[in-house]
Amino acid sequence: MHILVTYDDGIYAPGIYALAQSLKKIAKVTVVAPDSERSSVGHAITLSHPIWVRKVNRKGRLFGYGVSGTPADCVKLGVKVILKKNPDLVVSGINLGCNDGCSIFYSGTVAGAREGALMGIPSIAFSLDSFTNPAFAQAAKFAIRLARLVSQKGLPKGTFLNVNVPNLPASRIKGVRITTQGKIPIHGTFSKRKDPHFREYYWLRGKSPVKKRELSVDTYALNQGYITVTPIHCDLTDHECLASLGNWRL
Amino acid sequence: MHILVTYDDGIYAPGIYALAQSLKKIAKVTVVAPDSERSSVGHAITLSHPIWVRKVNRKGRLFGYGVSGTPADCVKLGVKVILKKNPDLVVSGINLGCNDGCSIFYSGTVAGAREGALMGIPSIAFSLDSFTNPAFAQAAKFAIRLARLVSQKGLPKGTFLNVNVPNLPASRIKGVRITTQGKIPIHGTFSKRKDPHFREYYWLRGKSPVKKRELSVDTYALNQGYITVTPIHCDLTDHECLASLGNWRL
Repeated sequence: MHILVTYDDGIYAPGIYALAQSLKKIAKVTVVAPDSERSSVGHAITLSHPIWVRKVNRKGRLFGYGVSGTPADCVKLGVKVILKKNPDLVVSGINLGCNDGCSIFYSGTVAGAREGALMGIPSIAFSLDSFTNPAFAQAAKFAIRLARLVSQKGLPKGTFLNVNVPNLPASRIKGVRITTQGKIPIHGTFSKRKDPHFREYYWLRGKSPVKKRELSVDTYALNQGYITVTPIHCDLTDHECLASLGNWRL
Repeated sequence: MHILVTYDDGIYAPGIYALAQSLKKIAKVTVVAPDSERSSVGHAITLSHPIWVRKVNRKGRLFGYGVSGTPADCVKLGVKVILKKNPDLVVSGINLGCNDGCSIFYSGTVAGAREGALMGIPSIAFSLDSFTNPAFAQAAKFAIRLARLVSQKGLPKGTFLNVNVPNLPASRIKGVRITTQGKIPIHGTFSKRKDPHFREYYWLRGKSPVKKRELSVDTYALNQGYITVTPIHCDLTDHECLASLGNWRL
């Protein structure tokens, strides 16, 4: 098995190191990731600038390829330029902070896996539900299990798995739940501030969405201590709406 | 009616001017758009930098608000900070170049409309199928008609319309088709080049996807001279896949 690993916080982040080292136990791993942090970059790609690639060492050894682009760029370039063929899996993460609910629209970690799915490669995104004191061990261990399962069973074309892991010791993780994507909007407020020159600016922030008390939804199940696995598809047509639009006399 | 207008190529682009001036015939229009080009920025948002806002004049009059962020930032900030309430519609465009098929994952124009839909506001994205000699008149005219229809009939929660218009005179546009989103991947090749200092870099490029000969698909219908209207939803759960994952013994 050959796995392409990427991650939006970049090739020097702790999360991608934990993920790559873990997956190396079961597969050949090629790391292709942004050369600096690209958080909340969504599914951006770089069309208006050149893209630079350089080899990156970590702990004295070649770790992977640092790219002056986005996670989606990294997956495209990793497959087309570096590997020159499809890997068996694309795995993105492990993100610092959860990517449940509507986070998946903004997340570069999730976009890395989505790009893999668009290219027809089974793909998984992993995120850890904490910004402080992250313990990647449980998520990295689960990544091995899930990568094996996905490589055995496959995924529907254009569908990838979005995984969120509580930042808890193994004994306190309640189990794994197959979930749906939460739909409560996030990142909806702005903090107004003044810079040292007395000019006003804004900082986008967002309260965590109100948790629905349904264990079938990723946001709530994660909050309750479950690892969540959400299958995400790339068929964005609202098929139900098609018929009603037909009556609009456009 | 009050319409919030945004566009990823920025507040100085010709397309947003054509759109705003057209929509002013039927509504109050507030323009909030990036202060420079943000093409292919997808659904990125700005969480790690401050966001600046300034008033922008065009043709000697206040045209709107230029924002140091992405189209998704602009919609959030336009609604929460500038308008302080939901507009009746969010309209994004008119993009230079089509956003059919898998372009919708990468497009900032489409993300502007998606952000409106996530916030519960009926939203539309408009793109013109040309990079050269754009004639925005037909698209701008159709924007009036569709904005009126959407404001009368509404859209399902979390669904927006993605519209592509051929760059043709009215007499050669064959009509309007309600379409599904094409699924053929795009932007899959890299051009390898050398900079003036003999260092290698890559430029991401993409052939247009092979056109399926189905008028029900946006890519082909647009290619055949139709205006395409595709309803795009934000429920990314692959509901069919949920049951089969339940048998995986995770």
